[in-house]
Amino acid sequence: MSDSSDMRDHLEGNRLDPWFDAYATRAHGLRTSEIRALFAVVSRPEVVSLAGGMPNIKDLPLEDLAESARHLVRHHGAQLMQYGSGQGWEPLRQRIVEVMTYDGIAADPDDVVVTTGSQQALDLVSEVFLERGDVILAEAPSYVGALGTFRAYEGEVIHVDMDDEGLIPEALEETIRRLRRENRRIKFLYTVPNFHNPAGVTLSNERRAKIVEICAREHVLIIEDNPYGLLGFDSDPLPALQSLNPEGVVYLGSFSKMFAPGFRIGWALAPHAIREKLVLASESAILCPSMVGQMAIDDYLSNYDWYSQVKVYRQMYRERANAMLGALEEFLPQCTWTKPQGGFYTWVTLPEGLDAKAMLPRAITGLVAYVSGTAFYADGRGGNHMRLSFCYPPPEEIREGVKRLSRVISAEKELVDMFGTNVRTHLPEDSVSSPAPDQV
Amino acid sequence: MSDSSDMRDHLEGNRLDPWFDAYATRAHGLRTSEIRALFAVVSRPEVVSLAGGMPNIKDLPLEDLAESARHLVRHHGAQLMQYGSGQGWEPLRQRIVEVMTYDGIAADPDDVVVTTGSQQALDLVSEVFLERGDVILAEAPSYVGALGTFRAYEGEVIHVDMDDEGLIPEALEETIRRLRRENRRIKFLYTVPNFHNPAGVTLSNERRAKIVEICAREHVLIIEDNPYGLLGFDSDPLPALQSLNPEGVVYLGSFSKMFAPGFRIGWALAPHAIREKLVLASESAILCPSMVGQMAIDDYLSNYDWYSQVKVYRQMYRERANAMLGALEEFLPQCTWTKPQGGFYTWVTLPEGLDAKAMLPRAITGLVAYVSGTAFYADGRGGNHMRLSFCYPPPEEIREGVKRLSRVISAEKELVDMFGTNVRTHLPEDSVSSPAPDQV
Repeated sequence: MSDSSDMRDHLEGNRLDPWFDAYATRAHGLRTSEIRALFAVVSRPEVVSLAGGMPNIKDLPLEDLAESARHLVRHHGAQLMQYGSGQGWEPLRQRIVEVMTYDGIAADPDDVVVTTGSQQALDLVSEVFLERGDVILAEAPSYVGALGTFRAYEGEVIHVDMDDEGLIPEALEETIRRLRRENRRIKFLYTVPNFHNPAGVTLSNERRAKIVEICAREHVLIIEDNPYGLLGFDSDPLPALQSLNPEGVVYLGSFSKMFAPGFRIGWALAPHAIREKLVLASESAILCPSMVGQMAIDDYLSNYDWYSQVKVYRQMYRERANAMLGALEEFLPQCTWTKPQGGFYTWVTLPEGLDAKAMLPRAITGLVAYVSGTAFYADGRGGNHMRLSFCYPPPEEIREGVKRLSRVISAEKELVDMFGTNVRTHLPEDSVSSPAPDQV
Repeated sequence: MSDSSDMRDHLEGNRLDPWFDAYATRAHGLRTSEIRALFAVVSRPEVVSLAGGMPNIKDLPLEDLAESARHLVRHHGAQLMQYGSGQGWEPLRQRIVEVMTYDGIAADPDDVVVTTGSQQALDLVSEVFLERGDVILAEAPSYVGALGTFRAYEGEVIHVDMDDEGLIPEALEETIRRLRRENRRIKFLYTVPNFHNPAGVTLSNERRAKIVEICAREHVLIIEDNPYGLLGFDSDPLPALQSLNPEGVVYLGSFSKMFAPGFRIGWALAPHAIREKLVLASESAILCPSMVGQMAIDDYLSNYDWYSQVKVYRQMYRERANAMLGALEEFLPQCTWTKPQGGFYTWVTLPEGLDAKAMLPRAITGLVAYVSGTAFYADGRGGNHMRLSFCYPPPEEIREGVKRLSRVISAEKELVDMFGTNVRTHLPEDSVSSPAPDQV
């Protein structure tokens, strides 16, 4: 008999859940994400949450959007509320092509598939490509929601190092060669080139060319995930990897950050044969994306100066980023952090010996929340990092949150200096997993 | 060297698609559905389509819904357009529980997960349970969209016979025993008890109890798919299988037919442990369902007499069903068909020797369309059947469509009587597959 916790979990699962033995192997890989256990606590108003990834949409022109919604339902209700095409509504796909010109992309609407948020595009790409044990290359660290999806399809993420200029081409090349020597099947490189989540850095122009060249030479498909591209504080994004090699890249886009997430509308732009597979996979998963969401977004893009709204967002997020970077400078001299030029996040490195995951319950007690760096690695690393988001709380709250964090870190540092290590109080769930929607 | 068409497809795929060898095995199972090739033709206004499964939503109160949309955006815009919970918005889950009381179900909102149409619920159930080669039991015939999803997860559908009272309990029991003798892993029974798509029949009350008893005894989970339950022509639905054994059934519901499909909102009600897995799988797939769709439907259910709208639909579909059954009586004496008490479809059996799939191109030429019975089988059967839908065209068009069909069938019968078999002109794609959204 064994009393290992694996065995215990299995038996308990079995006893309480009569269908436990019927689950597919992949279902056992579906786990709650790290901070979910603390979610109820984090939602308390007295806690300053620097954990969440919810965009701040309070500046949207709600009166105008309300009139527009009325008009759409009244004059196009029968189409709005009906099934649509599995690939997505053609007029919206044309607008999407226009939006992508800001990334230097020249695309055909026929190569676009509209999805239920770009998360579904990630899911479809995983479904079409991943077999159990296949390798996905991804930045170290990577977006928690992508890691969860790759895990659900039983792929294995191998992280590739990045620095302040993004993914390191030499590290990518070395990793590909090593894996090929080990006869591993590499299915694709997953990368977030702009205002990386969670790292807060942007892939430099020079490296974009190098990475595209390496992947083309090594025949590795690139999945380019770009939810934040238009939210650069001072400028439009650098040219997308897709623009450098359209046949080698599946590009994922989203309206969640540049407009609003509540419609759940994103897209994939893919080489034609892959696009066909993605459409079939999407029809099998959801039949078709919501016409309500598609027509509402098409209306917004067609009848509003959406780029002006993007500029409003840029200004708002820049102020918050400045508040955070200023507060870090002032209150956390014992840490280092990345300097984002856009997006929602900065990536903080803790002083030697501190463990962000072990420290999190004490941070919550100190009324501030973050996401431990471990959430963004598939291999257990990241304990000496935390992701801080500046997208949602107002500047003065951000400052207060960082101030609280400095007290937590100082207290933690004292403990570590005294006892030589963190007093570990790890949270119940230990592994990478599906994200809570509010923390992506 | 082989010149089989399989090999040729493979080589062509390889030559034209540089990523062909990177696809997962399951991706090769994603196929276009049978009538997709003829879709453009079927959409021509001169063709009477008895093929589609689009609900007729022209009777919705668009003026009221337009005001309601304006109010929602104006007063709740920031919540409407934000991320929500992965499980679904709690107020909507409460409304869903109220809707399910019409099926005799007493549920807790905490056991409900809101999905992107009930198709996503089917996808999530498949993801959580199916491994390559697992068996799904399903009626003969079955919903084309379910067959496509089970195929995408590499499950194998074994059909169980049904008759005018629905699934035959003895056939179910015999099939389970045979498969157990063959050491096959049966993961669940998939069934549409009310106004079956495509068969047009309803599972009798007596059989409901028997089927639940057999599945409980044999420890086979039931997936009960009920999109049409409220659309009985004359009455509320019989008690759901779920109401007879809540711990043994995952129940799938949808607003697509009782309200409108454009919001893409459906749900699953599941035993608690399964519900937890479904939520994690959904978060991995789409993060969360659309708040826009959820709040709009909650508003509709809360502020309208939605049940009166259901009665309007019932009356409208009853008239169309009567038009179709009358026309079949008048024009197709050489065929037999089922007599639906609700829903969208009747299932027609052709005279001996006719093949619905071979005949379809000639039907299109004769300006009428249907779906060949082969679409609804995973094993190639169904050629002597066709599904006729009465949901979308008005009564006089239905009558004209059936009249045209009678000419096509008569001409076909003459050919068969002369040459002994159909002159086969099969469509390009041969297998069960993802459905076109308009033909479900």
